[in-house]
Amino acid sequence: MSTVITGASMSIDGYIAGPGESGFEHLFAWYEAGDRELPSTHPEIPLRLSEVDHRYLSEHLERLGVLVVGRRLFDMTDGWNGIHPMDRPVVVVTHRIPQQWIDDHPGAPFTFVDGIEAALEQASKLAEGRAVAVNGGTIARQFLEAGLLDEIHIDLIPVVLGGGTPFFDQVGAAPHVLENPTIVPGERVTHLRYRVRKG
Amino acid sequence: MSTVITGASMSIDGYIAGPGESGFEHLFAWYEAGDRELPSTHPEIPLRLSEVDHRYLSEHLERLGVLVVGRRLFDMTDGWNGIHPMDRPVVVVTHRIPQQWIDDHPGAPFTFVDGIEAALEQASKLAEGRAVAVNGGTIARQFLEAGLLDEIHIDLIPVVLGGGTPFFDQVGAAPHVLENPTIVPGERVTHLRYRVRKG
Repeated sequence: MSTVITGASMSIDGYIAGPGESGFEHLFAWYEAGDRELPSTHPEIPLRLSEVDHRYLSEHLERLGVLVVGRRLFDMTDGWNGIHPMDRPVVVVTHRIPQQWIDDHPGAPFTFVDGIEAALEQASKLAEGRAVAVNGGTIARQFLEAGLLDEIHIDLIPVVLGGGTPFFDQVGAAPHVLENPTIVPGERVTHLRYRVRKG
Repeated sequence: MSTVITGASMSIDGYIAGPGESGFEHLFAWYEAGDRELPSTHPEIPLRLSEVDHRYLSEHLERLGVLVVGRRLFDMTDGWNGIHPMDRPVVVVTHRIPQQWIDDHPGAPFTFVDGIEAALEQASKLAEGRAVAVNGGTIARQFLEAGLLDEIHIDLIPVVLGGGTPFFDQVGAAPHVLENPTIVPGERVTHLRYRVRKG
């Protein structure tokens, strides 16, 4: 099976969105904190990173083979119009096949499966030895609770948002012990990569 | 006025205690992760730290002149029996003077004041140029909301606790923007020191 990773830009009080979907100008300030551009399939979202963040994100993207996402994230983004910004195949965990969307996006590298185990099996096949990223928080939590998550990458943002959407919301089967992190200090972000301790 | 600092050992999901007051063996594992002892006024709580954590904590304690604590923390610890483990004067923020406790602990370097502004004024006098530490979370939040907090020190612990007592609970007047942190990687802890951006 592939290495399974989740991650998010998170405030120091644990939120990936502030109250009323606010705070993104802080959470994603590091995406525009320099002048090193990163190519994107969605040129309307330019990424201009500091040197160190550019290197960090490039290496991260190189490791990734496939994305596993929940139905909520898929619906929120309307399936990124058929091409994920990271330009990778996407496996969507869902009970309901969105036939209309599939008909509207012929050739889009999206697969729809029911349940996280089936999703991981499908993603591992597509990943060709590279890692699998799982998002958002609800799906990542299910992988963590099932003992299927290998790494948690937190891009820790220097802001207190005071409320909103927690990255980790009422995780079960806790506590989950992690190893000491790999740390990369960026611009308006601290990158923390944790391995999940197994067994 | 003195520099005002708050801090805590916090899980990556934001908790300073797990569900039902659990998880302390993870949150404070770094206090026993080495063999460098730190003197304590409470020898029943031995601190045996790694070299880097010993240096970090020693430098931190050297900076501190006075502690400001809320009434809840004071009551929970019964005022540390009159001597705080860090061996510093303590200013307790409270509406109700605990006359019985004062009578029972003659000479204890504890002052009782009403309101955070009065507490800061009193603490600054006692600090003699050193910093003031404010705890726990409720009092720290009041200082942050009032624009009186200068630094937030997070000892980030590699564990997901899944619930419990948040360090930052529904902070108001948010967002509060912080500077990029100073980072010290420790053993079973990552020390992050943030300055609060003012105005």
